[in-house]
Amino acid sequence: MTIDYKKELESAAKTMILVHDTQVLIKLIVRMIVHKVKVNHAAILLHDTEKDTYVLTVSRGARGLKVPKGFARMDKDNALIQFFTQRLDEKLFNHGVVVYEEAQELLKNDEIDAHLKQMLKDASYQMEIFDSRVAIPSFFRDELLGILLLGQKENNEVFGRDELDFFVALASDVAMAIRNAQLFRDLEKELDAKKRLFVHTTIALAAAIDAKDHYTHGHTARVTSLSLEIAKKLGERNHDAINEKFLEHLQFAGLLHDIGKIGVPESILNKNGTLVGDEKKKMQEHALLGSAILQPIKELETAILGVKYHHERYDGSGYPEGLKGDQIPLVASIISIADSFDAMTTDRPYRKGLSRQEAVDEIRRQSGKQFNPVIVEALVELYQENKI
Amino acid sequence: MTIDYKKELESAAKTMILVHDTQVLIKLIVRMIVHKVKVNHAAILLHDTEKDTYVLTVSRGARGLKVPKGFARMDKDNALIQFFTQRLDEKLFNHGVVVYEEAQELLKNDEIDAHLKQMLKDASYQMEIFDSRVAIPSFFRDELLGILLLGQKENNEVFGRDELDFFVALASDVAMAIRNAQLFRDLEKELDAKKRLFVHTTIALAAAIDAKDHYTHGHTARVTSLSLEIAKKLGERNHDAINEKFLEHLQFAGLLHDIGKIGVPESILNKNGTLVGDEKKKMQEHALLGSAILQPIKELETAILGVKYHHERYDGSGYPEGLKGDQIPLVASIISIADSFDAMTTDRPYRKGLSRQEAVDEIRRQSGKQFNPVIVEALVELYQENKI
Repeated sequence: MTIDYKKELESAAKTMILVHDTQVLIKLIVRMIVHKVKVNHAAILLHDTEKDTYVLTVSRGARGLKVPKGFARMDKDNALIQFFTQRLDEKLFNHGVVVYEEAQELLKNDEIDAHLKQMLKDASYQMEIFDSRVAIPSFFRDELLGILLLGQKENNEVFGRDELDFFVALASDVAMAIRNAQLFRDLEKELDAKKRLFVHTTIALAAAIDAKDHYTHGHTARVTSLSLEIAKKLGERNHDAINEKFLEHLQFAGLLHDIGKIGVPESILNKNGTLVGDEKKKMQEHALLGSAILQPIKELETAILGVKYHHERYDGSGYPEGLKGDQIPLVASIISIADSFDAMTTDRPYRKGLSRQEAVDEIRRQSGKQFNPVIVEALVELYQENKI
Repeated sequence: MTIDYKKELESAAKTMILVHDTQVLIKLIVRMIVHKVKVNHAAILLHDTEKDTYVLTVSRGARGLKVPKGFARMDKDNALIQFFTQRLDEKLFNHGVVVYEEAQELLKNDEIDAHLKQMLKDASYQMEIFDSRVAIPSFFRDELLGILLLGQKENNEVFGRDELDFFVALASDVAMAIRNAQLFRDLEKELDAKKRLFVHTTIALAAAIDAKDHYTHGHTARVTSLSLEIAKKLGERNHDAINEKFLEHLQFAGLLHDIGKIGVPESILNKNGTLVGDEKKKMQEHALLGSAILQPIKELETAILGVKYHHERYDGSGYPEGLKGDQIPLVASIISIADSFDAMTTDRPYRKGLSRQEAVDEIRRQSGKQFNPVIVEALVELYQENKI
């Protein structure tokens, strides 16, 4: 007997290797089986490695289940799980698959010992709950990764020997694909964790440096979040440069824009009044100093531009280089406005902060002078939408 | 005709999914083919995505190659590559494989146009250079990932049609496995880059904070590297706690141990003489302050212990909590000795630094008093080996 679905399933199984989302992968497999093998129901119990239980991950077919999906969770000591992890299937069945009808025959056999019979009975009961006729284990090396459960065939025929053999082979392919997907997910999780660690550490250190400057508590966090809002607004307005990568760079530029203040004497940083002459010069050095601190870090290249040039002015009268208009990197132009807005609206010992309306009006007046008009527009829009 | 090696190769190809090192994978495949198919020579040209060329990655077999391995590199405009990327193999051969003998027959055919003939001739010449009789392309979607080249069969027979069909299927499996491995490698590379970025940024920020304290230039870097040396020495002496993870935590603890100094006034930090009364108290706050700055970062838990307790003393007379003996976390005990050693051997405006010998002697005298004896021993050993 030839199995007509064999070739199709085999080639579909191959493409699974490149599906690195376990859930999607499992759904794909079960849908494929229900469709091609024509069973009224198929389900997969998948090993949840974190909780060390087996979970009904997907269930498909017309007749559905007596147990709702997601609800079913089997511990390692569940009879069906034990049946496979103790490899009793190999002892009692010669094809590595538990067939419900065969199990019922074996239960009548007096030569089988009582303990084994009880295990088989309990496992059969589990299969009944899941309304399944066949249970196929999916092993990766010695580890039971999951169990494929199949219901009745639509034409009510029993599964042939060659079909069962085929399912065993398929289950092994599936196990490999699942393990591959899990390894991928683990790596992705580690990457996410590292990204988070980096962001959180930068935030903590930036906040510590912020704390040195007595008058600007929370300044760094506010400038960073306002800068990101402005950039997103520019993105909505189809500004080409705005993408995920840019936002990431902008975030670090925002967090680190005042890092150079670590080199400015406290007496200047905390001076109760306007800075004059040499004091002003020392304070202005923070932009270059900040970029010098970060210079060795190649990956922060774009962020460093923000640190270095966030005091440049659109008309060329800023520092450290007196860049003009579009010579000023976008990341720096954005931080410049966010930085000014926050400085204007914050109280200082020698003056009260402006209201938001007053600050926006002042920034508007400086459009084309201190600030890039395109970014001023974005800020005004954010204000009008009550987003700042 | 049945192919006797088919089943073996198929099942071997399946396990390839979990080999995530492209080089190992390719070697495995070629060794397998030479062994099972019994050809005198097999090689794989693999696409180098970064340089966009095809490289002779592995070559096996008794007869070897006219072109040495690693030397052969084909550009995208190479005749054999072009032959496949333009899918001329499909135009001229009906099995997706170029067979050298068939190519020679086609070259005699007058119905084939001159341009196509020239391409075929050039491709054949490339095959001659590689001493191969069959060239099988390995496509992933529309991308030519590589070419499998097979030499003569050992029994001198020609390859049968079913064999060629089988190789085409195998090449597609191989392509999938290679692509999977490449995706893995890309993810791992990204993870490494993130790790490096994190370390470099922490180093840069720690160095900046270091620079505030005029007398301790380079102190942070030296304490970190000495701490790691001590830990490795403890590891050699079978100290259980020393593993990769611990060394990583220790590195960050070393880099960040004085981060709290950011909250100590410059007048105290740079005082030209011994600190007294309130000054001393303010300076000592840096340990708790440092741990407070980093507290929100859960992943740095162990490193934070080093920051918080690096001024505790083995006899309980240290700060901030007066911990004793083994109550002091290992990470902190290590940094404590490294920190003291560096402070002792560094010149201050009000005193010259000790020699290394003098510092080691002093630390030895403080064994069981200020310092943990086990760690003192490790330091002494490093000194005796001229490693510090």
